[in-house]
Amino acid sequence: MEKFQERRFLKKEILYLPNDEKNLVFLVKHGRVRIYLAYEDKEFTLSILSPGDVYSTHTRAFIQAMEDTTILVTDVRNFQKIVINSPVFGLNIVKVLGDLLKSSFTIINSLVFKETYLRLAEFLVQAAEDIGIPVQQGIKLELGLTTEEIALIVGSTRQTVSVFLNDLQKSGILEKVNRRTILIKDLKKLQRIESGF
Amino acid sequence: MEKFQERRFLKKEILYLPNDEKNLVFLVKHGRVRIYLAYEDKEFTLSILSPGDVYSTHTRAFIQAMEDTTILVTDVRNFQKIVINSPVFGLNIVKVLGDLLKSSFTIINSLVFKETYLRLAEFLVQAAEDIGIPVQQGIKLELGLTTEEIALIVGSTRQTVSVFLNDLQKSGILEKVNRRTILIKDLKKLQRIESGF
Repeated sequence: MEKFQERRFLKKEILYLPNDEKNLVFLVKHGRVRIYLAYEDKEFTLSILSPGDVYSTHTRAFIQAMEDTTILVTDVRNFQKIVINSPVFGLNIVKVLGDLLKSSFTIINSLVFKETYLRLAEFLVQAAEDIGIPVQQGIKLELGLTTEEIALIVGSTRQTVSVFLNDLQKSGILEKVNRRTILIKDLKKLQRIESGF
Repeated sequence: MEKFQERRFLKKEILYLPNDEKNLVFLVKHGRVRIYLAYEDKEFTLSILSPGDVYSTHTRAFIQAMEDTTILVTDVRNFQKIVINSPVFGLNIVKVLGDLLKSSFTIINSLVFKETYLRLAEFLVQAAEDIGIPVQQGIKLELGLTTEEIALIVGSTRQTVSVFLNDLQKSGILEKVNRRTILIKDLKKLQRIESGF
């Protein structure tokens, strides 16, 4: 570990900007770090790193401290030597990159199907207002509609609607209780999608 | 290597579909493999794997043989053990995932700025027709415009235009010769962008 340099950052501080000149690898020692893509008026969070997670600086993403954070930094060459000696570091970066890749695919998905997604979110928000039953964990929607029928309503395909519902389930926004019943667990997030991300 | 199973695929055959049930890791032994995302009418190639490259089956991407291909397959748990013993496998999958992540960021970028990108591609194709000088490597555009001035024309910012031009340079479509001169190396690809990917 002697080749690592310790660096400290305050909450909200930017650790690295996109395409930072130096190609470094860092390990989170304390704190939490957010990896995100930012465009003129949009932000996409890709991942949140915890202590033990490893990431590199030389990407298109912004890297920000979510709380007071300490990282251990080294250059890529040294990191490769470390992986050869302690393969568990390699497994960790594989996990982090896998998570980032998964988030990226979700973002690509939502951008490709943006119009459909907006209509679907709008449909669910409207249904929550019209026929939603407040329950302990959120709002229960007894839609009485199959995925195919929802797809017809929003002008899409069964497959796209199904991917979208799975995405919403994975992000904790809703839960598919059974074929025709949906539990909305986070209406606010759904409304945020409906109003254009 | 004894825990790997060998599998053969013909050119164009699909190795794995998105979200394939089993969580497997494979190593390309012979041939080339394309990783891509496909939507109703769009396809995005994320990466092309060569012999020695390692990837996993349990993602949102399609995996297709570009030529007759042989892969060695194992499950994720066994792969983790292999990485612990042969860390060079870990480094390889880090490289593959890093490349995939980079492509994903480029795709996200192009989707977020789709309108701007279309206008920029249109501007460059038009300029090639109007003032392009055929040279050995392609079509030379002596635009006499800075990135800022191009941004004004297409209704965007200097930064976005600059990212777009860098992307086009990385994909081999054009080359920035100097501040005001661009060499278009692949007009057909540029026209394909202009006509909506």
